[in-house]
Parts: sequence; structure tokens; C-alpha cells
Amino acid sequence: MGDGGDALAVDPPPGELQVEQVGHAVDALKVSGEQAAVITPWEVSGKVDYEKLIRDFGSQRISPELVQRVEKATGMPAHRFLRRGIFFSHRELDQLLDMYEKGKPFFLYTGRGPSSEALHMGHLIPFEFTAYLQRAFKVPCVIQLTDDEKFLFAKDASLKFEEYVRLGRENAKDIIAVGFDPELTFIFANSDYIGHMYSNIVKIQRLVTYNQARGIFGFGDSDNIGKHGFPAVQAAPSFSSSFPAIFGEKSNLPCLIPCAIDQDPYFRMTRDVAPKLKYRKPALIHSKFFPALQGDDAKMSASDPNSAIFVTDTPKQIKSKINKYAFSGGGATVEEHREKGGNVAVDIPYRYLTFFLEDDDRLDQIREEYSSGRMLTGEIKAELTSVLQAMVSKHQEARKAATDEVVRQYMTIRPLKKEQ
Amino acid sequence: MGDGGDALAVDPPPGELQVEQVGHAVDALKVSGEQAAVITPWEVSGKVDYEKLIRDFGSQRISPELVQRVEKATGMPAHRFLRRGIFFSHRELDQLLDMYEKGKPFFLYTGRGPSSEALHMGHLIPFEFTAYLQRAFKVPCVIQLTDDEKFLFAKDASLKFEEYVRLGRENAKDIIAVGFDPELTFIFANSDYIGHMYSNIVKIQRLVTYNQARGIFGFGDSDNIGKHGFPAVQAAPSFSSSFPAIFGEKSNLPCLIPCAIDQDPYFRMTRDVAPKLKYRKPALIHSKFFPALQGDDAKMSASDPNSAIFVTDTPKQIKSKINKYAFSGGGATVEEHREKGGNVAVDIPYRYLTFFLEDDDRLDQIREEYSSGRMLTGEIKAELTSVLQAMVSKHQEARKAATDEVVRQYMTIRPLKKEQ
Repeated sequence: MGDGGDALAVDPPPGELQVEQVGHAVDALKVSGEQAAVITPWEVSGKVDYEKLIRDFGSQRISPELVQRVEKATGMPAHRFLRRGIFFSHRELDQLLDMYEKGKPFFLYTGRGPSSEALHMGHLIPFEFTAYLQRAFKVPCVIQLTDDEKFLFAKDASLKFEEYVRLGRENAKDIIAVGFDPELTFIFANSDYIGHMYSNIVKIQRLVTYNQARGIFGFGDSDNIGKHGFPAVQAAPSFSSSFPAIFGEKSNLPCLIPCAIDQDPYFRMTRDVAPKLKYRKPALIHSKFFPALQGDDAKMSASDPNSAIFVTDTPKQIKSKINKYAFSGGGATVEEHREKGGNVAVDIPYRYLTFFLEDDDRLDQIREEYSSGRMLTGEIKAELTSVLQAMVSKHQEARKAATDEVVRQYMTIRPLKKEQ
Repeated sequence: MGDGGDALAVDPPPGELQVEQVGHAVDALKVSGEQAAVITPWEVSGKVDYEKLIRDFGSQRISPELVQRVEKATGMPAHRFLRRGIFFSHRELDQLLDMYEKGKPFFLYTGRGPSSEALHMGHLIPFEFTAYLQRAFKVPCVIQLTDDEKFLFAKDASLKFEEYVRLGRENAKDIIAVGFDPELTFIFANSDYIGHMYSNIVKIQRLVTYNQARGIFGFGDSDNIGKHGFPAVQAAPSFSSSFPAIFGEKSNLPCLIPCAIDQDPYFRMTRDVAPKLKYRKPALIHSKFFPALQGDDAKMSASDPNSAIFVTDTPKQIKSKINKYAFSGGGATVEEHREKGGNVAVDIPYRYLTFFLEDDDRLDQIREEYSSGRMLTGEIKAELTSVLQAMVSKHQEARKAATDEVVRQYMTIRPLKKEQ
């Protein structure tokens, strides 16, 4: 899995868009327009127009009606990521709901590329959403740690493979801390589990040519041969037969994949090969990208602690980073702000609140107050600070409980069934 | 592993050499000359000049002195394949002997691509030779069944992956029947074992670009992405760290690979990446190709039962095939033969005897008698018939003893050590 992390970062800023990157990017993925964006699982740059992305990728917008259907099917309010359009696009979620309503269960599949020990809040978004889907639909979930991908795609070749394996285990603790049902969740690292899904991997690989992989992923002739084969490794878990000891030998359970939209190429390829293998196409639900503290033109990076709020930050660090670095859409002076109001479309404190503040009424109120200039930048920053301090401190508590032994339990190959 | 089988076949005849095949073949592998030969792990065609191959591949000729060194080191006469130049070329076998003489053991690695249930006598050659090396040097041996390769490279896409897995288990019975030491031999199918060597596989893959793979193996843009990654799967077992539960976690045992010369590209790549991984380069010992019954211009094929002697043939079939199909270097009439003698350079009965008749004196005698015209074609054919009938019947007996349970024992992951 690319990851719910770098995947959600915007990287690098449009001004730095270079010819080589465009060369590596792919027709299908070039979102044309005045300011061309490049979106691949490893590179997101340029100004992203999500409506255009839906048209270019050929996915479906998530309509208010579809959100209501999810609420009705689950008997639970939709997650704020869904009701606020942060998960905004899908493929065949409606058909998955048709089946679910007829009593046919499905399984969830998401993942993370363990590239660093320090996770930021953006990394948690797909996991928080997936955990909600698990609670709401009461379905099993498999989570892939792509230690192999991160090793094969690393630009900096200094880290050993074993280090990516270790990072995967560490990241699993943060994933578990988000709140997955231990009886219904299987976390696996490719370094461990590859053999179990190898027959699906080679079956997928045989159906994809180098030309196609270049077309979908933008691989070049000087890319290593491991990159070429990897898409099949990320595709394989979309098919429940990759988990014979978990879902049963003959299982053909439908799959729903929550992911950031930059991961879509993997699953377009997967959906393309599925019928040739007599498998169901996985359904998808796509999120938008999570912005860096400095705004859309900046990049969140583990090597720049000020670029994001990390799950390891202290309350003091959170406060300080938001006050110092969060890009403000407010006026340059208090007078100007009172007069013109704040621009919520670019204001990072407001945008972060749309991700993290649960209370819809309070969010509406903040938007009104801040846009009108009644609420000041310092005040909206304080609001975000307290929301994030509470959230991060809760995460840190939960992570402490995710010991090596707990990780081992989630990573044990076993049938995923609720004990009755 | 390509295989000790198709690998040993000559395919297709030079007259059928087509532009597309040349296009797919590789500069490094094109043996230039009047009649260009194309030698890749999947395609051997054209007239093979083995001396030229040694120069073009940059390997070493096996000298009579080296054969003597092997005899001295092992205290055993060299195998007829070695003393008759059927294994004719090597890489660093001398350095391996240096180490062995100083008390440093090594392990043997060979393999087979399970493409059909019907093995012919050519398929057994690398295994018979490897079993001899095991007996002579008293060293462990690992044997790879590349069910994944045969599936990914199949021209005919009708067989399922599961069928290649099954063929691998069947072929293992024939391999075991050749006579490998059960305490010192580990047979593994990639479909089973891939996970255990995955860290070495990705480490190798990261060091090889698409351009390099195209250069070494002749892959094209319309080849599937599984082919691109596969060379690392065949390379990985050259490193003893791919067998942590067999040779120990920290093992760095030297490796000797007996194989047909067409497999050399895999191991040139392997030797290239080894120092970058701080591993030892594997040593190699290369065999010539085994001819079809109809001679060098024909192709042995499981779909043509008359193209080869199969290990399942009855004594009657063996006799009949040799009499009907074995290409003869004898005179067109008895008179002509008595006058001019037989041409042992092209005579298949004689050439097969160089592979299968153990007795050197008798072979010399036959060469003299047949070349001079004193021995007739019918007589040399009868000689070969009785040698092959005995050999095949012995194989069939040994194969009966190689039950599923015996296969399971050889394929069990366990330390390879002689019980004292």
C-alpha cells in the first residue's frame, strides 16, 4: 500500500514540478488543466482539482443520497470524513451496499507503507475511517504493511530491508491504537505473509505487461525490477482467496478498499484483472489529501517535525506548531481580519478542524464566526490546539496498550470471526 | 530454474530462427558467427559453438587438471559427465576447491521448471551430476522447483498455476529417484517457499533495473511484469541466507550451481549483485545441451513422444524409438558403412552412449569399431538400447519408492546435517 501517509501528503509544491517527474507520470494520471497536477502513488504535486480527478479517473462522486444509504444500512451516523466529503469518490460502493443489504458481507482492506516511525495525523485518516467502517458494518478487515514496497521504492537507499520490517511492526501499534476490533482484524507485513498470497500475485502479474505497468504507474526503464512486480503484491489482498486460512479456502468475499485517491491506480489495475481471474472487482472509497501545516503547497515530512502534527507530539509542541506554522487564511492585521474575515478555503486551522472536530454545529459556528471576522486567528488556532491535544493524547494512551504481544495477536494468521 | 530439461533441449532448429526471436534475444547472449545461435534460459537455437560460448560468456573451460583436482579432493573418480566434457565450463570452481581443501564446506543448488509430467533422459542430467557432487563432496543440496517461472513464462496459457504446483511435486519424485541423500537435500517449490527467501529477493530486485534485465534476459515491453521480477527468485537460493532454518540465521556458505549453460544469465546477474549485498558469488559448473533423438536440429518435447527417451518408457518403446528415430551417422548402406565408417560426431546412438555408458574402455572400443565401419548402426543401436533400458528401469524402480510421503520429507524445512 502506498500509505495513508505520504499518500496524503502534497509533495512537492507546484513551483518545483520538474520535467522528469512529468516524464515519469502517466497519461491516465495527468490531470490536465492550466496547472497540471501529477498524481501517482509515490508523487502528488500540483494543484489538485478533485472534481476533475473524478472525471479523469472515471470514479463516482459520493452523493448525499449515498451517505444516507450508508447511514441506513449501518444504523449509525456517517463518519465526519464521509459527511464532510473528505472521502469524496468511490467505485461500486453502491453495488457493495446492494449486496450488504441482501445479507452478503464483505471485508475491508487498507494498508500502510512503513517509511518512518513518526506518524502524523494525516497517516491516521484512512485507518480511522476504516475502523469506523468496521464498527458500522461489523465486517472483517485486513491491513497490509508494505515493507517491501517502501524498500523497493526508497529514494534514499540507506535503510536496510530489515529496518522497514521493524518500522512496519512499530506502525502496527499506531494502527491498532486507532481502534480495530481484535477479533475481526488481521494485520500482515508483506515480508511475512507474501507466501500465502503468492499464487494470486503471479496470476495477477501474468495479466499485466510492462507497457501497461508503465502506463498505469509511470515506471521507467531505469526503475528496478522489483517495482515492476510490486503492483500485484498490493492488488492481491483485494481478493479474499489471498487469505485462505482467514476467510476459508474457497472464499470469494466482496472487498471494500478505503484509501487516498492517489492509490487508485493500483486498484484500477486490480479491477481490470479481476474478471480474468473470475474474482470480484473490489469496491473503493477515496479520500482527498491531507494538507501540511504550512498549507497545500508544502509537504509533510518525517524529517521536518514542523511540517505536521505527529502522533508523538506533546501538548506543548502541538500548541507551538499550530501557533507558529499553521498557514492562516486570516487578515494580516486584526483590523483587516475584522473587516474582511478569514478565508476558510485556505486556512489550515479551519481545514484541520473539518478533519478532526466531531461536532458539526460547532464547526458551522466556527466557519461563520471566522469567515465574518468575528473569530480571530488566535482563537481558531486555540480551538484546533485543544481538539488535537485531546486526540493525540488519547492516541498515545491507546498506543501504550498496543504492546509487541498485542501486535503479535493482530498479526497471527487465524479465522476472523466474532465469537458468538 | 529454467530447468535441466527444456534447458537441455535444442529448440527450434536453425532454419526456423526468426527475427522476433533474435529481437528478443540479447546482445550478451547472441553468439555471433556465420550461423548465429541464440541462447537464453527459454530459447536455445542455432548451431552452438561451445568454445565460442565460453569466450562470449566469459566463463572458464574445465581443464583436465581441474578434473584431476576434483578427483583428488573427493577421493573419487570424476563422474563421466565431467571426464567426458559434458560439464565443460565453470566459474570459480577452482576457488571453491581452494576453500574446500582448507576445510570450508559449500552447498549445491540446482533446480527444475516443472513444465510437464513426462521427464526425458536429458532432464535427469543436471540432477545425476548434482547427486554425484553431493556424494563426492558430502555437502548439502537445495533444489528449487520454479512452478512460478513456468506459469509466468508459459506460451500456452491454458494450464492453471495450481497445475504447475502439482507438476513440481510429481517432478520431485523423479529428482529424488536420481539418488539424493535424504539427510542432506532440501527440495522446495517457489509456490511454498517464496516467503522464506523474500528479503533476499527484494534486495536483489532493488539492484537490477528493467534496462539491465532486458540486457541480460531479452525481456520486451509486452512481457508480463512477473517475468521481470522472476530472475531475483532464481538468484536468491544462491545465497545460503535464503535458508535460515536450514543453514542457520547467519550462514554465508559458498554455493556451487550445476546447470546447463543456458541458465548462466541468471547467475551472471546473481554474481553481479552478490558483492553489493556482501554475499559470496556462487560458483558454477555448466553442461552442454542434450540432443533430441533426431539430432541437434530437432527439439525434444513432451508433446512428441518420439523426440526423446522418457523416463516412463517401456523397454519395448525404448528399443523401438532408438531403432526408428535415433539419427544415424552411419553409412546409407552396409557396404558404404563398411567402407567409410560411421560419423560419431553426429551419430545419436554414439553421442547418447557418451552420456550414459559408464565404462570408458567400452566407449573407446565402440568409437573405434563404429568409426572404422566394423560396428554397424544396428549394433550400436542395440548397445544404446540395452544401456537405456537398464537405466530407465532402474529409475522407474527408484521412482516407485519416492512416494508423496517421501516427497514431503525432502520438502520439509529442517536443518541439513548428517546424523553422526
